[in-house]
Amino acid sequence: MTKSEKPLLDQINFPSDLKKVSEDDLIQVCAELRQEIIEQVSCNPGHFGASLGVVELSVALHYVLNTPYDNLIWDVGHQAYGHKILTGRKDLFHTNRKYKGISGFPNRGESEYDAFTVGHSSTSISAALGMAVAAQLSDDKERKTVAVIGDGSMTAGLAFEGLNNAATNNADLLVILNDNNMAIDPNVGGLSEYLLDITTSQTYNKVKNDVWRFLGKFNRVNPNTQKLFQKVEHGIKTILLKQSNLFEALNFRYFGPVDGHNVNHMVKVLSDLQKIPGPKILHCITKKGKGFEPAEKNQTYWHAPAKFDANTGEILQKKSNNPQIPKFQEVFGHTLVELAEQNDKIVGITPAMPTGSSLNIMMEKMPDRAFDVGIAEQHAVTFSGGLAANGKIPFCAIYSSFMQRAYDQVIHDVALQNVDVVFCLDRGGLVGADGATHHGVYDLAFFRCIPNMTISSPLNEEELRNLMYTAQLGGKGAFSIRYPRGTGRELNWKKPFKEIEVGTGQKLKDGKDLAILSIGPIGMQASDTIEELEKEGHSIAHYDMRFLKPIDEKILHEVFKNHQNIITLEDGCITGGLGSAVLEFMSDNEYTAKIKRLGVPDRWVEHGTQEELYKECGFDKEGIKNASLKFLAK
Amino acid sequence: MTKSEKPLLDQINFPSDLKKVSEDDLIQVCAELRQEIIEQVSCNPGHFGASLGVVELSVALHYVLNTPYDNLIWDVGHQAYGHKILTGRKDLFHTNRKYKGISGFPNRGESEYDAFTVGHSSTSISAALGMAVAAQLSDDKERKTVAVIGDGSMTAGLAFEGLNNAATNNADLLVILNDNNMAIDPNVGGLSEYLLDITTSQTYNKVKNDVWRFLGKFNRVNPNTQKLFQKVEHGIKTILLKQSNLFEALNFRYFGPVDGHNVNHMVKVLSDLQKIPGPKILHCITKKGKGFEPAEKNQTYWHAPAKFDANTGEILQKKSNNPQIPKFQEVFGHTLVELAEQNDKIVGITPAMPTGSSLNIMMEKMPDRAFDVGIAEQHAVTFSGGLAANGKIPFCAIYSSFMQRAYDQVIHDVALQNVDVVFCLDRGGLVGADGATHHGVYDLAFFRCIPNMTISSPLNEEELRNLMYTAQLGGKGAFSIRYPRGTGRELNWKKPFKEIEVGTGQKLKDGKDLAILSIGPIGMQASDTIEELEKEGHSIAHYDMRFLKPIDEKILHEVFKNHQNIITLEDGCITGGLGSAVLEFMSDNEYTAKIKRLGVPDRWVEHGTQEELYKECGFDKEGIKNASLKFLAK
Repeated sequence: MTKSEKPLLDQINFPSDLKKVSEDDLIQVCAELRQEIIEQVSCNPGHFGASLGVVELSVALHYVLNTPYDNLIWDVGHQAYGHKILTGRKDLFHTNRKYKGISGFPNRGESEYDAFTVGHSSTSISAALGMAVAAQLSDDKERKTVAVIGDGSMTAGLAFEGLNNAATNNADLLVILNDNNMAIDPNVGGLSEYLLDITTSQTYNKVKNDVWRFLGKFNRVNPNTQKLFQKVEHGIKTILLKQSNLFEALNFRYFGPVDGHNVNHMVKVLSDLQKIPGPKILHCITKKGKGFEPAEKNQTYWHAPAKFDANTGEILQKKSNNPQIPKFQEVFGHTLVELAEQNDKIVGITPAMPTGSSLNIMMEKMPDRAFDVGIAEQHAVTFSGGLAANGKIPFCAIYSSFMQRAYDQVIHDVALQNVDVVFCLDRGGLVGADGATHHGVYDLAFFRCIPNMTISSPLNEEELRNLMYTAQLGGKGAFSIRYPRGTGRELNWKKPFKEIEVGTGQKLKDGKDLAILSIGPIGMQASDTIEELEKEGHSIAHYDMRFLKPIDEKILHEVFKNHQNIITLEDGCITGGLGSAVLEFMSDNEYTAKIKRLGVPDRWVEHGTQEELYKECGFDKEGIKNASLKFLAK
Repeated sequence: MTKSEKPLLDQINFPSDLKKVSEDDLIQVCAELRQEIIEQVSCNPGHFGASLGVVELSVALHYVLNTPYDNLIWDVGHQAYGHKILTGRKDLFHTNRKYKGISGFPNRGESEYDAFTVGHSSTSISAALGMAVAAQLSDDKERKTVAVIGDGSMTAGLAFEGLNNAATNNADLLVILNDNNMAIDPNVGGLSEYLLDITTSQTYNKVKNDVWRFLGKFNRVNPNTQKLFQKVEHGIKTILLKQSNLFEALNFRYFGPVDGHNVNHMVKVLSDLQKIPGPKILHCITKKGKGFEPAEKNQTYWHAPAKFDANTGEILQKKSNNPQIPKFQEVFGHTLVELAEQNDKIVGITPAMPTGSSLNIMMEKMPDRAFDVGIAEQHAVTFSGGLAANGKIPFCAIYSSFMQRAYDQVIHDVALQNVDVVFCLDRGGLVGADGATHHGVYDLAFFRCIPNMTISSPLNEEELRNLMYTAQLGGKGAFSIRYPRGTGRELNWKKPFKEIEVGTGQKLKDGKDLAILSIGPIGMQASDTIEELEKEGHSIAHYDMRFLKPIDEKILHEVFKNHQNIITLEDGCITGGLGSAVLEFMSDNEYTAKIKRLGVPDRWVEHGTQEELYKECGFDKEGIKNASLKFLAK
């Protein structure tokens, strides 16, 4: 693909270059920047719609602010491609999300323009408040702090906590509410409806002005009612100025709504706001996917599309050997509906990931029984606890790395209540291009210490179905079923359900020289390795543990009685996970054996393809083979 | 203490008995219930002020609702003593918070009247919404669901997430906002100021009514302005009815504020609200400690006072062998000020626990540099991350069990940012009478799997000071210092600071027969045991590991080279903690030894004194001795 001409953008590598452009030319800069994002993402897939939506905002912010001295914090970071291109990373942008390339999210380690590393939602207000307070304490009074947060991210409790605290604290903080009524899927909740109301009611400010004009008029024309008038005026003032707006109720000065695609107006508004001290919010209306028609029309798909033709928008499907093999997510989505048709206790819950988790399948077929609660993982879990307390069996689908945000709720509002909630722990393990913030590698460790938890991970699609079937039978308390991003291998996955006894694994094959204990679909990689090694004359036993907790002690006794060399394999951190559970069992039962724990090492793992990362972490096929050979050579 | 006469309360064991009382007699019931709480708590300490504040509310709720069929959820549960006494537990109440006695919080396992087990704040709206939706789906249309939540708990993100989701969901849910402008310490934040505004502005409803009257008048007297009027009326209607109130903005119908101490009025209001469908909020003004003068005057102290004289309010200090020995919390509080006086980068943060954590000492001396952010653990951590990103060194003091709520923020907003934040992890280990929801026993396991975390726990007060000194030197990233509830042993703790090399433990004594590796002040218990055992002729080595991560590998090599019998000791769960770390080291380094892991077993531990619970878990002095003797006898 030849790059289209971009005479202005070609000259801009840093915000200092942008500042040399005349205000009149900013529209052209925006057009070129938008085109650059379209071209880049069309051939190197990544997040798309969000960045197109904030092109004008990104340009205006870097035009007005003195970055990196001023702190600019992008919430989540899906929308920061324009920011990255404007801050020294234009020429590196073709490496976006690639192994050893730049990160798809703002990252403190990558650039001084990235004030805060992000990936998870709703952190920006709290982080920005911290930075603003630090600036204040350091007599760094000139430093401005700006957080850009989407309306979807505003529904998360952390954002509210930040707003609530900023109110008591007169720090110089500007929150830009980037309102497009979308997260990845359409946004839901009272706040979302409220924002839509403000926006569609012919601008809230106009009404406010009308009221003032109206009152002013009466004040003159009818002096007799002055006493009542004064009283009421005071009331209206209080209500209108202080309580009439959700944000002003929280002590934020509210400005807007403004058209976020009018770059010149945005420059003016942002310049004006620089002069207003204290916490303030600018409500800015944008469109996700702005300027690329297909992305405007189907915003959920174009949140992060596959490769596409930058001119026509035609999707260029990446070739797959077997496109019929479904993702684990799809198996989950269809199976949940199948089970829910048989068991009317089942309900489905997702915090703002209906499409990503495939809960949308149930939402379409059984809208009364499937709930998208918005970006609100904590609530998703406690809400599930409440549903279960009144007899339902909730299937709560949350990505592993976002489950970190509902950790207390899993402990306190589900496990401790002793109610049946099934956690469908999606994106368990290394997720690939989204990188360190999104890898779901800690859950096996952080769930394992919770009393009463049942922790499972299926080897394949069929087992995923059977674990789901088993969990919905009820009476099993907090029950986690973990599966990775991506597909398994099974075309013919829709087999009749079979109950799996909780706490039982399965012997996949016998062997004498070495035993491999794996959990989850990564076990299939071990099977491949074993197949190769057996061809070379080795004899290797392989057990699919299936449950991390309760762990299959019968299998473990068998293994320790018959093996001195053991490999544990998990697509999760080796600190505290399956390997540690096996070591604890060994110690408690006074066995001895040599154990090699394969999994994610105790350091951050960045982005890349899943295959590249498995290799880096030493548990791709080659890694498993090398670890095995070390034992087999002895 | 002789019990005062309570002719009405004596007849009431269950809500069915209460319903037989005439409305006129409810005031007397409240007086007797209040007296009962005062008498009970005066001799068996527990939470106090909160329950006094909701006496009338508790009586009114059980008078009007059909509990336990209707779901009544108390947020946090500090305030549920009246509820407990009215629901079958009057005669058991003397066992409140005692070992094997009733729990100090509502507990599903204890009574069908306790709809949800609580202890942590702000779960009630989400749980109640789940219950209300479950009732709706089950065609259980008559079932009412009521959540009672304090204004302090409303500042936590989880509560906001629940409100936001309830708005889109027409479930029959009543949220009672019990507004006393207090959590344990005075409440802070924008929401708190907002609620105070509503309350003090001569009732918000009155203003609203005045506005209507005012507009009605003009409509008649000046028909010429009708066109403008209509337009403005529409605007005002929209604003007043929909947007004028924070809760109505979120689609909740708002009622109040009402006097929560007028039991007859509360009965009427609650009866009326039964007939109004959908999500609604009743704003109810109460006073913490109501009816007991000292408790009204010093609400923070009387949140959970020591034994006192029920007539005079005189505090009957429990005798201590050495009352001068400070709590670990006090050592933390004073030391932080001492360090902050030398290092102006230091700031202090607490989420609503200034008194409990002793951060109040810094808040008094350095109000600009110490922040109570309200009940908002997530924000406390991300705010700390932001402060650190701009060069501050935040000391963020959070109780271990509440840190569960900020788990994602520790990973994503501190550890991953690679900034210096010191987590002062208070109430680490078994906490005693607060029970299962409050034991801080998972943190060693859930922190250990986070890359880059430094995890430490001092043996004693002097080490606590030195770890704090070490952490504030900077450049060490996320640094956790864990200490338990209660006192150490050291009178003379204020010694000159000494840097401790990160990742180093210390050998407390040499020995040949057995090595005990401990972390934290529980190690002092091991020292006592060892002293006894050595008198009996045994030779036991004792190491204070001090750091769980990075763990002292030099010590571990020494131990494994010299010992075949090892005990690990931690006041935390044995699944994934110190013991597991030692096993991982042993395996990775191909040592063999017999290891007994002492700590909290993998099940819920209920309430009791710390000593009773150590014993139950097998790591009191006796338990350590028995475990040692098992090795020594071999």
